[in-house]
Amino acid sequence: MKRYLPLVAIAASCASLPLLAQQAKTYPAPSEIVAAAKADEWVAIAPSDLVVMDLAPDSKAKPRRVVIQLIAEPFSQGWVGNIRKLAAAAWWDGTSINRVQDNYVVQWGDATEKKGLPEGLATVGAKDYVTRDWPTKDWIFAQADGRPDAYAGAYGFYTGWPLAQGREEVWPTHCYGMVGVGRNLSPDTGTGAELYTVIGHAPRHLDRNIALVGRVIEGIEHMSSLPRGTGALGFYENEEERVPILSVRLGNDMKDVPAFEYLNTDSASFAAYADARANRRDPFFNVPAGGADICNIPVPVRRRAK
Amino acid sequence: MKRYLPLVAIAASCASLPLLAQQAKTYPAPSEIVAAAKADEWVAIAPSDLVVMDLAPDSKAKPRRVVIQLIAEPFSQGWVGNIRKLAAAAWWDGTSINRVQDNYVVQWGDATEKKGLPEGLATVGAKDYVTRDWPTKDWIFAQADGRPDAYAGAYGFYTGWPLAQGREEVWPTHCYGMVGVGRNLSPDTGTGAELYTVIGHAPRHLDRNIALVGRVIEGIEHMSSLPRGTGALGFYENEEERVPILSVRLGNDMKDVPAFEYLNTDSASFAAYADARANRRDPFFNVPAGGADICNIPVPVRRRAK
Repeated sequence: MKRYLPLVAIAASCASLPLLAQQAKTYPAPSEIVAAAKADEWVAIAPSDLVVMDLAPDSKAKPRRVVIQLIAEPFSQGWVGNIRKLAAAAWWDGTSINRVQDNYVVQWGDATEKKGLPEGLATVGAKDYVTRDWPTKDWIFAQADGRPDAYAGAYGFYTGWPLAQGREEVWPTHCYGMVGVGRNLSPDTGTGAELYTVIGHAPRHLDRNIALVGRVIEGIEHMSSLPRGTGALGFYENEEERVPILSVRLGNDMKDVPAFEYLNTDSASFAAYADARANRRDPFFNVPAGGADICNIPVPVRRRAK
Repeated sequence: MKRYLPLVAIAASCASLPLLAQQAKTYPAPSEIVAAAKADEWVAIAPSDLVVMDLAPDSKAKPRRVVIQLIAEPFSQGWVGNIRKLAAAAWWDGTSINRVQDNYVVQWGDATEKKGLPEGLATVGAKDYVTRDWPTKDWIFAQADGRPDAYAGAYGFYTGWPLAQGREEVWPTHCYGMVGVGRNLSPDTGTGAELYTVIGHAPRHLDRNIALVGRVIEGIEHMSSLPRGTGALGFYENEEERVPILSVRLGNDMKDVPAFEYLNTDSASFAAYADARANRRDPFFNVPAGGADICNIPVPVRRRAK
């Protein structure tokens, strides 16, 4: 089938098409740069940093597994600790996905709000939405043309995470697939028992206002393709619409979880990938953008070869 | 049910909660500014600018209607003219949605690629992805802090459309819900028979590389919640996965299409709304962002009261 595409990877699928003279010099697509990265440019994700959520099977009895990577230090570690405790206590088993708002978020937790929390969860302050305790000065990925972030002084990547920087603070950004902690009005900051993930255009106005604790690295389609809730804010109006959560476990407490790795954001291949995302020169494109926002440079994550 | 929300409209649902002293002065949420806009700040959308697509009913026999607004002059009018002809010829009836790629696009058209096109379609040049024939100089929405677009010299809104500006050119932007024309490798520019809409983070690298012809103004959830395709680029691998398109018609050729209107992007209420999107001060928020990218300021569109 011939494919009319607003796309990238067309360079591979249309390799047999004649190219014009000015297109004869081809540049690799971002996906090709990632595929060609060296083995030592990938960083293994520890199983203890994985949270594995099994939803009830879909209407065709297919299993639905969502894998989340917890965010690295120094970010949000109070909430991350709570999430480890909640998973170890099997607290989410029997809860559900309760909200699906188009172009915004999918949210899950205890819809009854009657389920007691395990003892020993930390109460974390809003100051921990950001960090001022920054270990290195040279973390910023400089865009070729120096265009700044619309929401911050600069943006960059550190240990595989997308970050924005203000005058004295650094914080993770609400990109597609990032996982955050639901809360009520301030001073509440949430415990981590109620979580959401982004399924639309990056709601960056939530940055610095909510704790980000990780990102979905596999299976987000099991959440992003759910029917949208018809209640206010996309909540499901009827109990039978909710999607049951069978279990949530830490990766190191399971036996059947594959290993994952991310492309080192300090590597040469990541720099080339980010540049290619900002300046597409592969054959489909006529005009390179000359820039990119941080959420349009998703950090590559994949299953680790055995 | 108490709602833990990364959200906006919580100001209404939690009005009974005690507020801290520093939150006692409340600011309206963007949705509240829109709801309070004056009647004369709304602009009616002509029925002749609507394209109404009826998909086959869903698994529960519910109808699925998607309404698209065609883009205004001076943008993409060659392709828009083709789309009017294709709809008038009922060309899409019996075609299907063939591709659903997570965090990217939903694409529809003739999967067989054997269906002949109506006579008289225009062939449009790539130069028409942008316009240099710009009728006014004062269209740019100035953000309070002057932060630029990551992809262009500036951004703004004109006659209800999100636009970016380069040195000599202006072009529409690939925000969530925007509709574009699938094409093959350049110099092909597509006819308008193969269309896609954005269902993820704005793929702004496509700006100036593909014709944008409109946006989905109602029913995008019927496309964004479809199962993701498992083939390359999110194409459905099996014919039975495709979603049949029953009919596509222009609004002025139908009797049962409601009227729509958009918030005038030159109005005081739109300016206040855009400012509030960039600087959230409603009670849920601790820190206003101090900026927003253009795709995080979606132009309000609603059904027109009778």
